[in-house]
Amino acid sequence: MSLKRILLSGSEIPTAWYNFQADLPEAMPPVLHPGTNEPIGPDDLRPIFADELIAQEVTQERWVEIPDAVREVYAIWRPSPLVRATGLERELKTPARIYFKDESHSPPGSHKPNTAVAQAYYNKQQGVKRLTTETGAGQWGSSLGFACSLFDLECKVYMVKVSYEQKPYRRSMMQLWGATVLPSPSDQTEAGRQILAVDPECPGSLGMAISEAVEEAVQDEEAKYTLGSVLNHVMLHQSVVGLEAEKQMELAGDSPDVVIGCVGGGSNYAGLAFPFLRHRIAGKEIRFVAAEPRACPTMSRGEYRYDFGDTTKLTPLIKMYTLGHSFVPPGIHAGGLRYHGMAPSVSLGIKLGLIEAVALHQVECFEAARMFAATEGIIPAPETSHAIRAAIIEAIKCRETGQEKCILFNFSGHGLCDLAAYDKYLSGSLDDFDYPQQKIQDAIAELPEIG
Amino acid sequence: MSLKRILLSGSEIPTAWYNFQADLPEAMPPVLHPGTNEPIGPDDLRPIFADELIAQEVTQERWVEIPDAVREVYAIWRPSPLVRATGLERELKTPARIYFKDESHSPPGSHKPNTAVAQAYYNKQQGVKRLTTETGAGQWGSSLGFACSLFDLECKVYMVKVSYEQKPYRRSMMQLWGATVLPSPSDQTEAGRQILAVDPECPGSLGMAISEAVEEAVQDEEAKYTLGSVLNHVMLHQSVVGLEAEKQMELAGDSPDVVIGCVGGGSNYAGLAFPFLRHRIAGKEIRFVAAEPRACPTMSRGEYRYDFGDTTKLTPLIKMYTLGHSFVPPGIHAGGLRYHGMAPSVSLGIKLGLIEAVALHQVECFEAARMFAATEGIIPAPETSHAIRAAIIEAIKCRETGQEKCILFNFSGHGLCDLAAYDKYLSGSLDDFDYPQQKIQDAIAELPEIG
Repeated sequence: MSLKRILLSGSEIPTAWYNFQADLPEAMPPVLHPGTNEPIGPDDLRPIFADELIAQEVTQERWVEIPDAVREVYAIWRPSPLVRATGLERELKTPARIYFKDESHSPPGSHKPNTAVAQAYYNKQQGVKRLTTETGAGQWGSSLGFACSLFDLECKVYMVKVSYEQKPYRRSMMQLWGATVLPSPSDQTEAGRQILAVDPECPGSLGMAISEAVEEAVQDEEAKYTLGSVLNHVMLHQSVVGLEAEKQMELAGDSPDVVIGCVGGGSNYAGLAFPFLRHRIAGKEIRFVAAEPRACPTMSRGEYRYDFGDTTKLTPLIKMYTLGHSFVPPGIHAGGLRYHGMAPSVSLGIKLGLIEAVALHQVECFEAARMFAATEGIIPAPETSHAIRAAIIEAIKCRETGQEKCILFNFSGHGLCDLAAYDKYLSGSLDDFDYPQQKIQDAIAELPEIG
Repeated sequence: MSLKRILLSGSEIPTAWYNFQADLPEAMPPVLHPGTNEPIGPDDLRPIFADELIAQEVTQERWVEIPDAVREVYAIWRPSPLVRATGLERELKTPARIYFKDESHSPPGSHKPNTAVAQAYYNKQQGVKRLTTETGAGQWGSSLGFACSLFDLECKVYMVKVSYEQKPYRRSMMQLWGATVLPSPSDQTEAGRQILAVDPECPGSLGMAISEAVEEAVQDEEAKYTLGSVLNHVMLHQSVVGLEAEKQMELAGDSPDVVIGCVGGGSNYAGLAFPFLRHRIAGKEIRFVAAEPRACPTMSRGEYRYDFGDTTKLTPLIKMYTLGHSFVPPGIHAGGLRYHGMAPSVSLGIKLGLIEAVALHQVECFEAARMFAATEGIIPAPETSHAIRAAIIEAIKCRETGQEKCILFNFSGHGLCDLAAYDKYLSGSLDDFDYPQQKIQDAIAELPEIG
């Protein structure tokens, strides 16, 4: 019997995170202050983030040691399995070998706790009492709630109001882990009150929720803010995914020719891809494919420009692929991929031609997820279905050319809290969305003219 | 860093199931024909079950080989982790060592696929084209749907109508795996039509759904019926849980003093307990604690009598602990524990004094689940929360007596599809139920008088 899953033992959880900045052929552009357009320093960030996370944001060290307390929590679900998708291979009649790194076994069900646990730990170490953050459908908020619960930190999550009301299950998950969850806009912050004064029925947005969470962290000396993607320290923490996968591919006696992931803010893809990207930079022939929705085609149709991380222009300016901070993507079910920007590190990878993008329709991704569930048994998150669809496209190419390539993708999360979306898909009432050209053009026209 | 999880490699999936019947100190009472009250033979069961499963139902062989094709599907999630509940131990300040066998990582989220996969395989081998079954909230139906999808069998699930309408997520799960799901009572069977003729608005029950699923299997030559608990062959398949746990406890250098599980029909508990029970029968001092809801106290308040497996008296008569087939338990959230009877093998274990029962309140179990989620990070199914509560009771006893006991329980499934129940618990609107004495007395009075 061939081995379906390649498992590592508990002692093989990585002891250090890998920092892609150390190997980038070009330095990352500085982050700019939103008021002065000048590069910001650590002091500007101290009211918002824990000191150690600020240091990790800019470090050029290749390896950053993982504290034992973080590895002990990782041990709840890590090392995660690397799985050979034999059922999918058979179904596709492809000569390709398809592997996926299964990040769905964490208690909240995705890769997000890889960084949530680290962020909670460093804040706890610094004596911070509570963490604030925003969440859309709840993947990030539930992961931070989980992490805070284990490190005995208070957790306050501003959840986009429409999700708070329509998707109560991840809210219950956060509350079970002891987090306080507020529908945003709320009357708890100045930002929220201002929005409600204008529109008491406002359904909220991720941009508004960021404003509320940052405001509370800045005004409360015992609190800090946390972000679940985009930033360098988040990509750093996610590198455990790729480091484990590297070891597991070796155990399988194989090596990936194509490394695939879905991309919203960039963290699950960076987590898998960056440890392999250093081999590409060192000369190894590996392709890197980042899959995004056509409804929110940041890499395929965005520009590499300085832009704000949030809709309300509160965050520093970062150089990244962006559709413009005022761009509002259509309501696809892969909520985690509905972001106007892209991690600056992933953006630079694209700019340098190291990573290629593919933009996919919602329905073809759900179809890929259905095929995956029927052949591999596991139900993917709608976000993850984009990675699966991209892997299937590569596997079909192999069938057509006869090439026996090795395809590796990140299975970033399960879809057990997304079954309502599958219900829509199965009943044939799921909408497709193509590139929203005019909206993108309008939003990019609003971008600040910098460097 | 001590090892949080004890993992086995893919090659360590058991190669044979363990059959408790081989080691029982007393033979199991025969199953009787519901018309004649005479012992039934294999021929009586052939229209309903696959031949190999009928053979496994009565075999006295100690070990039954697991087919490679079944082990290959098991490899999607097996071997499952054995986890040391260090967070829970710390919270309880107990000198006890608490371990749990984590069966929540199967794609449907529970132990049920351990038998669903085996049943689908033997039916496929026999040339059966489709399987029928009933399901309440959907745990069993989704597991059979998953298994049928991988063995390319049609699957038809009669789902209790009130669950079909109010709990659509597990229905979507089954449909995504390609199963046909019908609300029961339906107009597809004679049994369903008769019920609907009397009460067109009937919300359905598990008993009615069994009637429909059995009727369809009997009338369709290409179909067979499957059951997810109670029967001996189901307990046999579930023994992989305990066999793996046995090996993992050895690797941990430990040995359980108490083995705990929640009990509905008995299969998850038998799966963990039976492989350890053979050591008890051989003289080793181990306690066995089966946790049930006070709302449905089959072992604590039932009688050891011949009774029907279903409400509508269609099934053979089996000797078991029962509250009476007409007993309708209060609407607790642990739907999988709302069964009037008990696996005859587990029942005999209780009768012989090998297994002791504990009956728990719903709210104390949710409170235990909340503590577990906060300290171990994982959200339990409401059924599983009964095992956790029973383990906590034992751990607190150890704190009080200073005894350093080793407690092992089965974490039978996660609660990610049960967050609505947690929402009720967190909002304080969860009802408690004590022993329904009068209803039990009335139902037991209706039992047939046999041997």
